[in-house]
Amino acid sequence: MAFMNFASDNTSGAAPEILEAVLRANEGYAPSYGADDLTAAVETKFQDIFETDLTAHLVATGTAGNALSLACAVPPYGAVIAHEAAHITYDECNGTEFFMDGAKVSGLPGPHGKLLPDDIDRVLRKYGRGIVHRAQPAALSVAQATEAGTVYSQDELSALSDVCRRHDIAFHMDGARIANAVAQLGRSPAELTWRAGVDMMVFGATKNGALGVEAVIFFKKDLANTFEFRRKRGGHLVSKGRFLAAQMLAYLENDLWLRLAHQANEMAQRLARGLSMIEGVEICHPVDANLVFAVLTPGMHQALGAAGAQYFPWVVPGDIANGKMIRLVTNFKTTPQDVDGFLSVTRGAVDG
Amino acid sequence: MAFMNFASDNTSGAAPEILEAVLRANEGYAPSYGADDLTAAVETKFQDIFETDLTAHLVATGTAGNALSLACAVPPYGAVIAHEAAHITYDECNGTEFFMDGAKVSGLPGPHGKLLPDDIDRVLRKYGRGIVHRAQPAALSVAQATEAGTVYSQDELSALSDVCRRHDIAFHMDGARIANAVAQLGRSPAELTWRAGVDMMVFGATKNGALGVEAVIFFKKDLANTFEFRRKRGGHLVSKGRFLAAQMLAYLENDLWLRLAHQANEMAQRLARGLSMIEGVEICHPVDANLVFAVLTPGMHQALGAAGAQYFPWVVPGDIANGKMIRLVTNFKTTPQDVDGFLSVTRGAVDG
Amino acid sequence: MAFMNFASDNTSGAAPEILEAVLRANEGYAPSYGADDLTAAVETKFQDIFETDLTAHLVATGTAGNALSLACAVPPYGAVIAHEAAHITYDECNGTEFFMDGAKVSGLPGPHGKLLPDDIDRVLRKYGRGIVHRAQPAALSVAQATEAGTVYSQDELSALSDVCRRHDIAFHMDGARIANAVAQLGRSPAELTWRAGVDMMVFGATKNGALGVEAVIFFKKDLANTFEFRRKRGGHLVSKGRFLAAQMLAYLENDLWLRLAHQANEMAQRLARGLSMIEGVEICHPVDANLVFAVLTPGMHQALGAAGAQYFPWVVPGDIANGKMIRLVTNFKTTPQDVDGFLSVTRGAVDG
Amino acid sequence: MAFMNFASDNTSGAAPEILEAVLRANEGYAPSYGADDLTAAVETKFQDIFETDLTAHLVATGTAGNALSLACAVPPYGAVIAHEAAHITYDECNGTEFFMDGAKVSGLPGPHGKLLPDDIDRVLRKYGRGIVHRAQPAALSVAQATEAGTVYSQDELSALSDVCRRHDIAFHMDGARIANAVAQLGRSPAELTWRAGVDMMVFGATKNGALGVEAVIFFKKDLANTFEFRRKRGGHLVSKGRFLAAQMLAYLENDLWLRLAHQANEMAQRLARGLSMIEGVEICHPVDANLVFAVLTPGMHQALGAAGAQYFPWVVPGDIANGKMIRLVTNFKTTPQDVDGFLSVTRGAVDG
Repeated sequence: MAFMNFASDNTSGAAPEILEAVLRANEGYAPSYGADDLTAAVETKFQDIFETDLTAHLVATGTAGNALSLACAVPPYGAVIAHEAAHITYDECNGTEFFMDGAKVSGLPGPHGKLLPDDIDRVLRKYGRGIVHRAQPAALSVAQATEAGTVYSQDELSALSDVCRRHDIAFHMDGARIANAVAQLGRSPAELTWRAGVDMMVFGATKNGALGVEAVIFFKKDLANTFEFRRKRGGHLVSKGRFLAAQMLAYLENDLWLRLAHQANEMAQRLARGLSMIEGVEICHPVDANLVFAVLTPGMHQALGAAGAQYFPWVVPGDIANGKMIRLVTNFKTTPQDVDGFLSVTRGAVDG
Repeated sequence: MAFMNFASDNTSGAAPEILEAVLRANEGYAPSYGADDLTAAVETKFQDIFETDLTAHLVATGTAGNALSLACAVPPYGAVIAHEAAHITYDECNGTEFFMDGAKVSGLPGPHGKLLPDDIDRVLRKYGRGIVHRAQPAALSVAQATEAGTVYSQDELSALSDVCRRHDIAFHMDGARIANAVAQLGRSPAELTWRAGVDMMVFGATKNGALGVEAVIFFKKDLANTFEFRRKRGGHLVSKGRFLAAQMLAYLENDLWLRLAHQANEMAQRLARGLSMIEGVEICHPVDANLVFAVLTPGMHQALGAAGAQYFPWVVPGDIANGKMIRLVTNFKTTPQDVDGFLSVTRGAVDG
Repeated sequence: MAFMNFASDNTSGAAPEILEAVLRANEGYAPSYGADDLTAAVETKFQDIFETDLTAHLVATGTAGNALSLACAVPPYGAVIAHEAAHITYDECNGTEFFMDGAKVSGLPGPHGKLLPDDIDRVLRKYGRGIVHRAQPAALSVAQATEAGTVYSQDELSALSDVCRRHDIAFHMDGARIANAVAQLGRSPAELTWRAGVDMMVFGATKNGALGVEAVIFFKKDLANTFEFRRKRGGHLVSKGRFLAAQMLAYLENDLWLRLAHQANEMAQRLARGLSMIEGVEICHPVDANLVFAVLTPGMHQALGAAGAQYFPWVVPGDIANGKMIRLVTNFKTTPQDVDGFLSVTRGAVDG
Repeated sequence: MAFMNFASDNTSGAAPEILEAVLRANEGYAPSYGADDLTAAVETKFQDIFETDLTAHLVATGTAGNALSLACAVPPYGAVIAHEAAHITYDECNGTEFFMDGAKVSGLPGPHGKLLPDDIDRVLRKYGRGIVHRAQPAALSVAQATEAGTVYSQDELSALSDVCRRHDIAFHMDGARIANAVAQLGRSPAELTWRAGVDMMVFGATKNGALGVEAVIFFKKDLANTFEFRRKRGGHLVSKGRFLAAQMLAYLENDLWLRLAHQANEMAQRLARGLSMIEGVEICHPVDANLVFAVLTPGMHQALGAAGAQYFPWVVPGDIANGKMIRLVTNFKTTPQDVDGFLSVTRGAVDG
C-alpha cells in the first residue's frame, strides 16, 4: 500500500525494532526515575558513539530537551541567538523562554535556515556584554539539520563555534534531525559536534522512528550541573524511565538511527529530483536531509488533494516564496512507491 | 517467581493490554500533536465514564498534569492550598510553582494525609481576599488517594467542595491513584469527582499499569481555556499523540483500570493484615489504597534487606513516626506470593 | 552657567515645583501603600485631563510601568508586538518578559522608530491565532514619542488601533515622553490616546522633571483587574505613596507637564536647526520631541569632548547610520545658551 | 499637636535632614542609572560603617531589596527558609517567589517571630540535598528586628549562621528595621551582621525616616554577581539615582539612622511600659524595637477609635492571641505626648 503522507516526521509511527525493545524492557521490576540499568547503558552508549566523556539525559519531547538544556546555560536576564525560523524561536509557544525563566530568544535571518558567523558576531557586539540595560547573550543555538532541511558542514560549525568562543557563549545544537544530518554528511558524530565546538545538544530520536524520546547531551559537562533539578521541575523526569531508555538504546544499536535516516534522506532526494523535473515546480532550499520545500501550481495542489496526499503549507519568518511554499517530509517508512505516487499525481496535474 | 519489590508503583512496568494497544496504534500514518482519532476517542470515553461533558487532555507525567491544570486556575500572584505532604507541595522540585509562574503552594498539616474543611477555611480567611499584600488563594488541591494511602469519602469531598464554593476557589484533584480510590470506595467516578464538586482533576494511569500517560480532565470546562497553550509551552504536547492515547484507551476499556487497582489494593490489604499480626510492627495510617505505612524493628529491616526486599524509608512533613516509618507499595502485578514472602521474612526476623 | 549635557533626559534632576510639592506632602501622617488622599487626587486629576473614566496607578520607574501594564494584557504564552528599537524590546534586560512571565516581545523594524499598520498586520497574520505552536499576540505597544524622537499623529494612532481591533489585541502606549508628544502635536490628551483607540498607557513624568514617578493608566478599565496584585508582587507598591502622588499632582497642575515639555522640545528644535546648517552634520530622524539624532564628524566629536559636552553614541537595531549616529537629548532645564554653546563648538571644529 | 498614629512605620513621612539632602542633590546635572557621585559615596560610607569591604546597591522598596538579593542566592529549583510570619513569606503577594523565578519560601514557626537553629536544621535535613524531587534549600532569611518586634542577639545570629555553614546555604538578613535592632542591641553594625555570619542584607531606611530607599548589601561579594542585571530586569534601577543616594547618605551621616531609631524604640518602650500597667491589657511579645503587640479590651478599642487612634489588628500565621492581637508601631516622629495620649485614652476606657 502506498501512502502519500508527507505532512510531518511525526505522522509515521515507530520503528519495529524500537517497539520490540520497549516490550523487552517490561520484564520484571526496575528502579524508577532513571535509576534503572537501561538508562545507565544509554549514557555509556553515547560516550561510545561520540568517542568522548559526556552526560546524557532522556526526555520525551524535543521542546523539553532544547528548552531545558538552554536553561542550563542562559540566565533569566540572558539571551540565546537562533535562526528566526528555528523551532525554539518560532514553534514552541514561548516554551524556550518559559524554561529560561523569561530569557530572550533573539531570532536572526539567514539564508536557507542557516546562520552566518558574521551576522551573529554583529548582533553579539551590538548587545553589549555587561551593559545592564540589555539582555546578556549566553548561547548560540543551531538546528542540525535546519528547519529548512539544510545541514551545516563541519567547517561551518567550526566557524560558528569560533564566534561563540570569542564572545564566551555556549554553543547549542538542536539535533531533532541530527541523524539525517550525520547520514548526509558522512562524518563521525564526534566531528560534527564537540570536535566542531558544540557544547551541548539534543539528540533526537522521535522524528526518526522512536515512540518519543530525545537525549540531552552535555559535552561540556559542567553545564549539566543544574539539569536534573530543572528536568524534574519541568515535569520531564518520567517515572518509568526504562521505557525511554529502551527506545534510545534500540535506536542507537547497530546503527539503526543512521539506517532509518538514510532511508528518509534518500526518499527526499528521490522526491526532490522528481519534482525538479516537473515544469512549474520550484525547489526552494537545498535538500540535505528529509525535507523538501517547494512551490507547486494550483492545479498540482488540487490534484494532490484529490488523491489524498498530505502536506502542509509553510509560512515562516524570512519566507522567500511569497507565502506559496509547501513542506514535504519523508521519513524512515517512506517507500519509493510513496514518492513515485506523489510525483505521478503532480506530473499529471493540469493547470488552467 | 516472587518479587519483594514494594519500592514504588513505578517499578512495576506496564500491563500487557496496554503494551498491545501501543503496538496496534503503530499501524499506518496518523496526524501528530493530538489530532489523531485515538486522542479524540479518549475524550469521548472519559465523557462516558464520568457521565458528563468534560475536556480531557493527555500528558506523559503526573507532575505536568497537576502543575498545568493548577496553572489554569491560579494566577501568578495566587496560591493553591494543599496538604503539606502532598506531591505537588513536597515532591516536585518546585514544578507546581514553575508552571504557576511563581504562585505559592500553601501546605497545611492534616491527619493521615487528609485535609480538614475547617483548617482550610481558617487559612483562607487569614489570607484575606483582595488584600494586595497577600497571595490570593485560587484553588484547593487534594490527592485521591492521598500520599498516606488514605481516601476521601464522597461526603468528605463534598464538605471540602463547600469550602471552595464559599471562598470562590477551584477544587482540584490529584488522581495519580484515582483508580485505587474508586476501586476502594465502590462509588461511581462521577460521584467521587464532579458530583462532589471537583472542578478539574488529573486521572492517572502511569502508577497503575501504563507506560506513562495521565489525563487532565476539566469538568468545569472554561478552566481549560488556556490549557493547550500551557501544555505546549511546557514541552508536554507530544508529537506522536496516538501512543499516549492508545495507552489510555486500553486502560479505560473493559474496566482494566479498576481491575488493576483492585489487585493492588487487595495485596495492600493482605500485606497490612499480615503485618498487623506481627509483634513489633506498627501500621501508621489506615490502608485504603495500595500503600502501607509501617514501623518495623531493626531486626526486620536487616532480614528484609538480606532477602532482597525493596522499599523506602518515608520522611515527610508532619511525620508521626519519629523518622522510623517505611512505605510499602503494592501494584497491579503484586502477587500473594510476593506479599507472603515479605511477611514470612518479617515474621522470622529476630531482634537483639 | 551653560551646560552642554545632552546625555539623557534623566541627567537633569527635578523641577522646583515638584520638589516643593514633595516637601509639602511631608506634613503629618498619611496612610501608606497608596491609601492616602494625594494618591486619590491623582486619579481624579487624570480623569479630568483625559476627559474620561480611567484608573491610574503610580510606580517609580518606566520599566515597571510598561512591564506591569503589558502583563495585565499578555498571558505567559502570548506576545507583544513592538518596534525592534523600543525600550521594552531592547533596553530592559528582559524586564518586559519577566513581568509577562516569559511572554515574548516581538520586535519589528519600522522607519524612524515608528511601526506601520501593514507590517503589524502581516506579522499578526503569520503568528496564527489559536495555533498552539505559536506565541499568541495579545498586545501592540508603541512609544509616543518614539525612541527615535518622532511622534505618531492621531491618524497614525487610529490606523494602528484598527489593526489591534481587527486582531482583538490590546493597544498599549509607552508614554515615557508623552508630554513631549502632546506638546508637539497640539491635540488634547484624549484625542491622542483613548479617542485614537489606546487601551492603556504609561504616562511618564520622570524624564520631564519628576524625581521618579510614572502613572499606569487604563482607559479600558477591566484590563486593570490584576494590576495591583502584580505591582505589589513586583516590589513596585511603595509604602510612602504620598511622595509619588505629590510629584505627579504638581506635574499635572497648571499644565506644568506641558510647559516643561515645550521648553525641551523648543531646545531640540533650536539644536536641530543649528546643526542642520553646519556642513558635515547629518540629521537622521525628524525632530518631533526632545531628541536629536545626528552624525557628526570626528573633528566635531573631538572638539565637543574637549569642551565637556555630554552625549552618547547610539547603536540600535535597524541602525541607519552605520554605527556613527549620536543621540542628543534636551530637557526642561536646557537653555538657549546650552544649545548655542554646543552649536558653536561643533561649528568651530576642524576636520583633518 | 499630638498624633495617635501607630498604624505603621510608613505613615510618618520623612525626616527633615533627608528631605534637605534631596533638595541639595538636585543641583546641576548628574549621570543617570547610578553612575553619579552620590551613589558611589553611599557604598564607601557603608564600607566605613560595617568596617569591611562590601557592595551596596540602592532600590526604592524593601520588597525589591529582599526579593532581588535572595534571587542572587537561590536558584529557581531552590528554597529559602524563613519565619512563617516573615514579610518575605507572608506579605509580598508572591514577590519573593517572583524574583526567584518560582523558588519556594519555606515558612517555619518560631516563638516571638524568631527562628530556632534546631528547627532550621531539622527542616534542612528533611529536604535532602541533591534529591531531585525536592526544592533545594539555598538560603536562610531572618528579619532583624523581626515582624514581632523582637531582635536576635549576636549569639543567636551566630548560632543560625552555624546552621547555614553546615548546610552550605546563604545567610540573608531582612533589615527593614535594622536601625531599631542596632540601636537596641548596642553592638556595632559589623558585629550584628557579617561578623555573626550574615552574607547579605537589606539595610532599610524607608521605615525610619527616608522617602523611600533601601540598600542591598553583599558582604560575600560574589553573591552580587548577577544583582545589577536582576535589578534592571525587575524595573528597580531608577534613572535619577542621585535622589536615592542622597537620602541614604543623609540617613547614614552623623548617625542620623541611629538617632531616629532610638527615638522610635524609646517611644515603644514608653508605650509598652504604660500599657503593661493597665489592667486588662496583655503584651504579647518582648518589645525590642519599635513594635508593640498587645491584646486590648473591646472597651479600649471603642474609646481609642472614638479618640482617633490609628492601629491595625494583626492576624499572622502562628498567632498566639486567638485573633485578638493588635500592632502598635512607633516611629522617629512619635512624641511622648503621642504615647501618653494613647495610654490615657486606654486607661480611661470602661468595659461593660
